[in-house]
Amino acid sequence: MAGTRVSQRHGTRTVGVLGASGYAGAELLRLLAAHPDLEVIWASGESSAGQPVAARYPGLASAYGALTFSSTEEALDKGADVLFMALPHGQAATLATRALAGAGLVLDLSADFRLHRPDDYPAWYGGPHPLPAELGSWPYGLPELHRSELLGATKVAVPGCYPTAALLALAPLVAAGLVEADGIVIDAKSGISGAGRSLKDAYLFVQANENVNPYGVGTHRHTPEIEQELGRAAGRPLTVVFTPHLVPLGRGLLATCYGTLAPGVGQAELSACLADAYGDEPFVDLVGPDGHPGLQGTWPSTRAVATTNRAQVAATADPRTGRLVAAAAIDNLVKGAAGQAVQCANLALGLPETTGLELVPPGP
Amino acid sequence: MAGTRVSQRHGTRTVGVLGASGYAGAELLRLLAAHPDLEVIWASGESSAGQPVAARYPGLASAYGALTFSSTEEALDKGADVLFMALPHGQAATLATRALAGAGLVLDLSADFRLHRPDDYPAWYGGPHPLPAELGSWPYGLPELHRSELLGATKVAVPGCYPTAALLALAPLVAAGLVEADGIVIDAKSGISGAGRSLKDAYLFVQANENVNPYGVGTHRHTPEIEQELGRAAGRPLTVVFTPHLVPLGRGLLATCYGTLAPGVGQAELSACLADAYGDEPFVDLVGPDGHPGLQGTWPSTRAVATTNRAQVAATADPRTGRLVAAAAIDNLVKGAAGQAVQCANLALGLPETTGLELVPPGP
Amino acid sequence: MAGTRVSQRHGTRTVGVLGASGYAGAELLRLLAAHPDLEVIWASGESSAGQPVAARYPGLASAYGALTFSSTEEALDKGADVLFMALPHGQAATLATRALAGAGLVLDLSADFRLHRPDDYPAWYGGPHPLPAELGSWPYGLPELHRSELLGATKVAVPGCYPTAALLALAPLVAAGLVEADGIVIDAKSGISGAGRSLKDAYLFVQANENVNPYGVGTHRHTPEIEQELGRAAGRPLTVVFTPHLVPLGRGLLATCYGTLAPGVGQAELSACLADAYGDEPFVDLVGPDGHPGLQGTWPSTRAVATTNRAQVAATADPRTGRLVAAAAIDNLVKGAAGQAVQCANLALGLPETTGLELVPPGP
Amino acid sequence: MAGTRVSQRHGTRTVGVLGASGYAGAELLRLLAAHPDLEVIWASGESSAGQPVAARYPGLASAYGALTFSSTEEALDKGADVLFMALPHGQAATLATRALAGAGLVLDLSADFRLHRPDDYPAWYGGPHPLPAELGSWPYGLPELHRSELLGATKVAVPGCYPTAALLALAPLVAAGLVEADGIVIDAKSGISGAGRSLKDAYLFVQANENVNPYGVGTHRHTPEIEQELGRAAGRPLTVVFTPHLVPLGRGLLATCYGTLAPGVGQAELSACLADAYGDEPFVDLVGPDGHPGLQGTWPSTRAVATTNRAQVAATADPRTGRLVAAAAIDNLVKGAAGQAVQCANLALGLPETTGLELVPPGP
Repeated sequence: MAGTRVSQRHGTRTVGVLGASGYAGAELLRLLAAHPDLEVIWASGESSAGQPVAARYPGLASAYGALTFSSTEEALDKGADVLFMALPHGQAATLATRALAGAGLVLDLSADFRLHRPDDYPAWYGGPHPLPAELGSWPYGLPELHRSELLGATKVAVPGCYPTAALLALAPLVAAGLVEADGIVIDAKSGISGAGRSLKDAYLFVQANENVNPYGVGTHRHTPEIEQELGRAAGRPLTVVFTPHLVPLGRGLLATCYGTLAPGVGQAELSACLADAYGDEPFVDLVGPDGHPGLQGTWPSTRAVATTNRAQVAATADPRTGRLVAAAAIDNLVKGAAGQAVQCANLALGLPETTGLELVPPGP
Repeated sequence: MAGTRVSQRHGTRTVGVLGASGYAGAELLRLLAAHPDLEVIWASGESSAGQPVAARYPGLASAYGALTFSSTEEALDKGADVLFMALPHGQAATLATRALAGAGLVLDLSADFRLHRPDDYPAWYGGPHPLPAELGSWPYGLPELHRSELLGATKVAVPGCYPTAALLALAPLVAAGLVEADGIVIDAKSGISGAGRSLKDAYLFVQANENVNPYGVGTHRHTPEIEQELGRAAGRPLTVVFTPHLVPLGRGLLATCYGTLAPGVGQAELSACLADAYGDEPFVDLVGPDGHPGLQGTWPSTRAVATTNRAQVAATADPRTGRLVAAAAIDNLVKGAAGQAVQCANLALGLPETTGLELVPPGP
Repeated sequence: MAGTRVSQRHGTRTVGVLGASGYAGAELLRLLAAHPDLEVIWASGESSAGQPVAARYPGLASAYGALTFSSTEEALDKGADVLFMALPHGQAATLATRALAGAGLVLDLSADFRLHRPDDYPAWYGGPHPLPAELGSWPYGLPELHRSELLGATKVAVPGCYPTAALLALAPLVAAGLVEADGIVIDAKSGISGAGRSLKDAYLFVQANENVNPYGVGTHRHTPEIEQELGRAAGRPLTVVFTPHLVPLGRGLLATCYGTLAPGVGQAELSACLADAYGDEPFVDLVGPDGHPGLQGTWPSTRAVATTNRAQVAATADPRTGRLVAAAAIDNLVKGAAGQAVQCANLALGLPETTGLELVPPGP
Repeated sequence: MAGTRVSQRHGTRTVGVLGASGYAGAELLRLLAAHPDLEVIWASGESSAGQPVAARYPGLASAYGALTFSSTEEALDKGADVLFMALPHGQAATLATRALAGAGLVLDLSADFRLHRPDDYPAWYGGPHPLPAELGSWPYGLPELHRSELLGATKVAVPGCYPTAALLALAPLVAAGLVEADGIVIDAKSGISGAGRSLKDAYLFVQANENVNPYGVGTHRHTPEIEQELGRAAGRPLTVVFTPHLVPLGRGLLATCYGTLAPGVGQAELSACLADAYGDEPFVDLVGPDGHPGLQGTWPSTRAVATTNRAQVAATADPRTGRLVAAAAIDNLVKGAAGQAVQCANLALGLPETTGLELVPPGP
């Protein structure tokens, strides 16, 4: 690219991707290549500016031909009907005003506009928010929880990968009062792509392969995001224990969630609640004790949703301990990032929600 | 399914998949779910008959709902406009007469109709061919080499995974006389899905993980298929040394090929030949010394084509040794099996060749 | 073997391994090959009887030469000074009387003698115990908790892999009253070798690779074992929620454990307790907030202990939620099975505890 | 360390490892921890100087306690009885004079002293050799080919990983004239640790996982080393085609080698030659048509030798094509680097050759 505007197909909206050199940004390019109503006209990558997209992501060669990464500056100058921001936190907020001015719809995949309370960002991200006036005005882009806020939206804070999985597993149960709001534990396992394309020892094949370990114990920045949204579901503030782990897969995220069942709650209530919440959801597959035909009795597995915008969700009541065990599996780069962003864009633009996202995972 | 005929979309052809419980058959289901003109109405799996497809392939749950595997008998009784056979060798030939009677187009993914010389099948497959009269009359379904034979075809022998990669790397160079027909060596590396869904020790995660080894040295059944097709390219019979290896990936196949350059042949001649052969091919990406913009200087990598029908191809002249090194990377289940079968079906049915196959790999 | 008794080195004890064709049994062979005081004279494998050990475990070729698997019958007839039983549950108890008669020391790696209460075995293993009179008389072979019971023992119930990790992380903290006995959650992740050498679809490379999923939710048979031992630490019965997961590695097991901190307990108390419990333990490495020099601030990782009998353990107090997060990483086949069995044998025989087990993991 | 000299065990030689922060250097530390006659007194790591070894290699914590990396300068000042250099090429030659002055035995794991002809280093390494006078005077440390030169040596050029595997597969056959010296093709597959601990995109888990690709086609620097040594075996200069590939495993290297059989040569001659060459070799396991009991008919697999100093070797005559296919599998960090260096040190010091190297691979 870098100077040439890709010619637009008739009737489509133009799209720009800020931060397309990272994994989430490149995943947006992958998904948008198959979207009939959205057309990428530029992709920025500050440190890769001027390089062909295909040199960094060979798999995108066939879909994007000779497109090159623009600089951020070039990109913002150009604008687009729809602008996805896949930038590190802090950068997104810094550029948000220009982004909003240059596009009819801005979807931010960073954490910058997810937290609504002014204190949360400084407490967890270690510094003042660059644009505090915007806090609270970006709908939280988890359509299964907040669809109505997303219809026609002009800006969307796309959720983090861990919160997406944890909330899909827990939010309806918390909202229905089936599980106590206090004492929830979320143990999550993420593929290495969740760490982004960072050149760190821990992400080298030789180090990450054949290894499992927790990280960010008690300090991971997705914690306040989960607490905010579960608190909204519960109708009151709450805290959670959240422990992420790295597991040796490229893509995939599983959140296994634990809580105390409210008095009298058993499997029937859990299953009914999930069926009610997700029965019509286009991207949620219920598995577990009362799951989808053919999937009953299985548990969420990342392989079953890999490369797609789908989530597998299950919940079980353990009568022996009075505990809930609920789990959700997603692809961290799709339902946990780029796919969810496209899903939100579809809603915001009034398109059918599944447009461009009817993907079948390359199992087995 | 099992008794109910899935309702057909207007204007589509009905499709049946014999042997859909194996990896290649399930991959056909995955690809056909996104094909606008082909509609799966049954999928057979002899030992899985009556079970939901989703129980065996959870990732297919969203696309195939409550479809269950039919028995072979039920399937053949039903027939379909287009019939894919993804059965073990021998079984395909045994059922071919009924299949041809019940469908306007039959595509066989086994080896049964690939070998044209009557002696080859018994010599390499250890027994008489069940239907020798059909030998030689099924076009070899590698569109990049034999497109004209596939247009309007009513039966197609879909190539093996190793031959596909080896032939894409070598056939144009052999046909152009740039490499000597004698002394070709093919060293191929395949992901474990190439072995099919067989419950053997060697394919267990614990055994296959962190391991690389050759197998079938000098005896692999894809050898005569490669020799037949390279011999057609050369205009005379030839033999090759072919050594397959198992490498610890799910999908992907790389063939690294060696030969003696004809006198006077250098990089320019190789690059020109490949550009001529593949410049207009919708599924071939040239990499290597004179490759695609952004991909020049890289070598074929399986990741760059994973889950797609694409091939990456490169060739280089080594002036120091007078040798050719050529390589091709494919996804063994797609371009090496199910995708190529769909590509052939598109050609046979007069549809645009890329219909349903415009896939972008889930890199990075 | 099968008939020939391997000549014994001077001063060593003879060893037999019942069930050496499985992963834990073969791991015993690997470890015993380096043990200066124990010498394997036979290895049984009922379905592999008569086959060379090297045919099933090529890596054992150099250490065991032409040794072949005996039948169970041949093996029991022969006896040995020390007998390891690496058989499926139920089989061990059935053969225990003969095993005890034929050996001075019997170490059982199955679950058959781990549970002390007569009701537990039938409740979790689905049938009556074959030898109920023996229940409660086999010391539970976790030396870090029960060393004194193991000194000079003639029979040992070697713990399960999940209990070993969970108990190493939790038992000292529970025993010291730093964490409340009720409401403990254990979320564990195991490599595929934990499933044994079973030819099941879920353990095929293609299925297990790039996948994470829970299994046996609420029903895993290691649950009562964990509850028994944590209950002993607490001084009263308790229940736990235990959820195992399969993660795509060959070896390695991580247990992440959650509980409610007792009033007033912070990091200092946790660290002091672990230092006190494990400061002199030869196989436990403390990591986490107050860990080993160079490892402070890291969390247990399976790679750091792979192929060795070591455990990495850490615990942290989360002041925000009043919760404990503790974790332990082991190699499921070594500290979780064969290595711990050898450690117990060393103690029972009066040998230095680390004999044959001073292994350095093949990092990085 | 960094200032404190680790106390020496009685009767042992002191050892220093230059470049211990890389994979090969750390592997030396792992192996030397189990060596009864060699004792590491320092380990240098220029960019890690002052850091605990355990912080970079957690698995070494138990064996090396609080040892910290020294600077190169401190290390050379200290000297040691035996000095291993695991430095990048160029650096080794630059420091060799000081190393030789400060140690009775120097083993260089870089390429700096492997090539004997003065022209080879500049041609392949892109610059003048820093110490050309030393070229040709360091025995090439492949004991199976050059044992007599290594006995009592005071300096050793430890071979590269690819040459080790290729030469083990080919050298005896070439030396015996069973395969023609011209036209040899070597197709090699290496685990990612072969690339060293470099922070490059291609070595990230997300990029290297599920990928196979050739690299350095026609230009890899191990080519002249293979040609030198095969030429010595043949008694005349020769060239080879050598193509390395990256495969997604941590450790392991397989070289599959192709050549033209000399007239009249069949399987019997190949098997006899290998039996003669390797029958008494402590680290070579013959597999293939006439292999070790229990391993006949298998082919070299990296898993069977992982973490050990062993090699599996096989050769077969393909009567159909008149071609040789030979293969060798090693662990690139052990027999391909650190283990072979220790083996050479044992020979140079007059110790039993297998001292500290009697390792059993952690199969299955």
